[in-house]
Amino acid sequence: MKKLFGESKIPAAILTVGIVLILWFYPVPEGLKPQAWHLFAIFMGTVVGFILQPIEAGSVALIAIVTCSLTYTLKFSEVLTAFSGGTVWLIVSAFILARAFIITGLGRRIAYMAMRSFGDSSLKLVYSLALSDLIIGPAIPSNSARAGGLVFPIVQSLAEAFDSKPGESARKIGAFLVTSVFHIDLVVSAMFMTAMVGNPIAAAMAKKVLDVDITWMGWFIAAVVPGTVALLGIPYAIYKFYPPEIKNTPEAKAMAANVLKEMGPMSKNEKIMFFVFIMLLILWATASMTKLDGTLIAFLGLCILLATKVLTWKDVIKETRAWDTLIWVGSVILMSDYLNKTGFIGWFAKILENQMVGVGMLTAVVLSFVIYLYSHYFFASMSAHVTAMYAALITLGVASGAPPFISAFVVALASNICGCLTHFGTGPAPVYFGSGYVTQADWWKIGFGVSIMHIIIWVGVGGVWWKVLGYW
Amino acid sequence: MKKLFGESKIPAAILTVGIVLILWFYPVPEGLKPQAWHLFAIFMGTVVGFILQPIEAGSVALIAIVTCSLTYTLKFSEVLTAFSGGTVWLIVSAFILARAFIITGLGRRIAYMAMRSFGDSSLKLVYSLALSDLIIGPAIPSNSARAGGLVFPIVQSLAEAFDSKPGESARKIGAFLVTSVFHIDLVVSAMFMTAMVGNPIAAAMAKKVLDVDITWMGWFIAAVVPGTVALLGIPYAIYKFYPPEIKNTPEAKAMAANVLKEMGPMSKNEKIMFFVFIMLLILWATASMTKLDGTLIAFLGLCILLATKVLTWKDVIKETRAWDTLIWVGSVILMSDYLNKTGFIGWFAKILENQMVGVGMLTAVVLSFVIYLYSHYFFASMSAHVTAMYAALITLGVASGAPPFISAFVVALASNICGCLTHFGTGPAPVYFGSGYVTQADWWKIGFGVSIMHIIIWVGVGGVWWKVLGYW
Repeated sequence: MKKLFGESKIPAAILTVGIVLILWFYPVPEGLKPQAWHLFAIFMGTVVGFILQPIEAGSVALIAIVTCSLTYTLKFSEVLTAFSGGTVWLIVSAFILARAFIITGLGRRIAYMAMRSFGDSSLKLVYSLALSDLIIGPAIPSNSARAGGLVFPIVQSLAEAFDSKPGESARKIGAFLVTSVFHIDLVVSAMFMTAMVGNPIAAAMAKKVLDVDITWMGWFIAAVVPGTVALLGIPYAIYKFYPPEIKNTPEAKAMAANVLKEMGPMSKNEKIMFFVFIMLLILWATASMTKLDGTLIAFLGLCILLATKVLTWKDVIKETRAWDTLIWVGSVILMSDYLNKTGFIGWFAKILENQMVGVGMLTAVVLSFVIYLYSHYFFASMSAHVTAMYAALITLGVASGAPPFISAFVVALASNICGCLTHFGTGPAPVYFGSGYVTQADWWKIGFGVSIMHIIIWVGVGGVWWKVLGYW
Repeated sequence: MKKLFGESKIPAAILTVGIVLILWFYPVPEGLKPQAWHLFAIFMGTVVGFILQPIEAGSVALIAIVTCSLTYTLKFSEVLTAFSGGTVWLIVSAFILARAFIITGLGRRIAYMAMRSFGDSSLKLVYSLALSDLIIGPAIPSNSARAGGLVFPIVQSLAEAFDSKPGESARKIGAFLVTSVFHIDLVVSAMFMTAMVGNPIAAAMAKKVLDVDITWMGWFIAAVVPGTVALLGIPYAIYKFYPPEIKNTPEAKAMAANVLKEMGPMSKNEKIMFFVFIMLLILWATASMTKLDGTLIAFLGLCILLATKVLTWKDVIKETRAWDTLIWVGSVILMSDYLNKTGFIGWFAKILENQMVGVGMLTAVVLSFVIYLYSHYFFASMSAHVTAMYAALITLGVASGAPPFISAFVVALASNICGCLTHFGTGPAPVYFGSGYVTQADWWKIGFGVSIMHIIIWVGVGGVWWKVLGYW
């Protein structure tokens, strides 16, 4: 968007405020309360503000909820409940847990252990990184932190160990590693509710709009089969169509063994982190039986890390992304919550339903997946995209008779894998692309190819799997 | 407390957990629900944890509320409301507003302007710093940020400009400036609800325990007369009993004029900050008429600063003290709220009432003030002190028939001025004492003398003023 307007933020600000004013003063459509329509106006302004960013997203969100309150669209006591939602605190705690994963060194150790075990060919090297990403995925909701912070340094040092640098030697192995690992991480994001910031938001919206319960375990079960196929298939396809020159990499195993030797045995903090991580996985996986709240489980993990001083309180309050998230995600969930409570979503779904008469439910579901996926060409953040389109698109499937879970879940999946398209569409993209191993043309071509695979795998394999599970 | 136990935190941890276990398994007193008693056990553990700090206060608070939830003492959805309270978000926003005050340079400018106008004797110099502290007080709830961050550098550079350094030349002017300004700042803290972190907490607890509404304006009106007397009297007393050698300071005026010249005219950001500040004062002062929520007003101020880019979103999320406060203050208010809802406070007040039979209300009110004040010898934080003792002590006055407002307000005042006693009792104390101008013996002697003045001024002058206002 920078290019569109140059450096000035004024046009973006005018557009953002403009959309609110235009909608606000537009006659309230029949069948809607003015409150619902006004909230929609503020919500649309928020979405436009998130996309154009005349000021940072957090500022936009804060201004939005203050506007809700000052215009009496929502009561101030209602506005403040933005900050006591379970979803947003799950994300906040996951950000802090991720920090512990990184500072204890456990994340790095897992990656190098996988490499040491399986890393003797360039394809297996990628699979071993996929495996470690898969292991740490459930506890790291920021794909930027995971793929960018944790895995990228390993990818880069691997490429350099094989004398593959941006430019002439890029295709030796670096370009292959960079693209495969980038695309793999998006699949991992799609496999766990706690592996991407947008996932709990999607689950919360699905609950509010369609009254569908997507639990942590429910998400994982529905995603595990198509996810595994994608994890195996996508690197293989890249290996075939964009092959590395170096195929055998026994050096990588040796390198990993060396790093692990240097790291020495697990520290006390690493062991505690490992224990907490396993505990979290077990508690999250069994939450629908134990009735323990997912956020409470995350809080419990944090408490153990704090009590044992694996994390200090300073680490917690310095995790600025957590507080950023608290405010903008909290505000967004609040507004979508009240869009539903005031009847806006129901009204909108009704309109959509009338449009969808005669459209088969399979068509509708595929359509919602594909529309969501390719609209991501216009987004620079997967979370902003969820905010803007998720709630509306999940009603598409339902309107044509598809089961609510399927309707909500396919779009939730799309909201992860849509990051594959461009070099700016999600946090890790500029990091991996910016390494310089891959040209922009190649990046976009591979991205488009992978997106086709995603459609086939998630809708095709996924569709069959959900049939087996009896979901439709 | 460090001295007591050496470096090990183990005894502190054992004591903290021990108090919870002992109380928890102690037979529930007659007339109380088990839930109320168990909550009290966890609350007492929190207070002990805040004082002994086996781990940081924020960690203690988080563990406390998770314990509430895991033991089914409170529901998790109730626990999360800790983070949507108006009080805690008022403090959070005030921390961020204070940051804007500092980074725009407006705070420094006000201090130097006061110095340039009145600073031609050492006593008037202190009055001019008191004036500027008084002006900026309402928007800076951290007395550490205000007295420590903003004013202290000015005090130190002033002392050095007069060749007064720690040691032999300390008494020239440095020792006088350091002690007077330190004590003045505590008075300013006591004068506005938004000038100290503990004040909104006290107001919230007063509402919950005694159902007393202490508004921003109500606080100011009740405090303004005794506060002004204290602002004038305390530096004068220090001037008499601990006099500076240098009495006339025309150089200070010249120095201030120079600094102001260097600063040049007000920047755009400073002007916006000034406008927002005036707006906040007007809106807070008129809130009981306009029915605008105090926190919403603070949010509005923040929004203007963010929209005009006086503050960036990064400034907001990097203000770690705000997030620290959100969690520990939120948790404390939550617990005291439910101590009330579950009937614990009522039960406790009843017991106290029986004890207070025959005690006059004036005695009771003075007693609550004095007990609170001198118990601060054992506290290293005014906020921890509020948490621990405020709710219990305000019932003392009421139990003997004093008006609820008076009972609650005198203890709220004590919770500010109690910082005068030691060199560790509040954030700025170690900063001012640490400058080295004053020996520990002098610091404690002056502190004790000032505490006697406080009793006379707040209870005596204050008592008469509240009589004039018709409060009792």
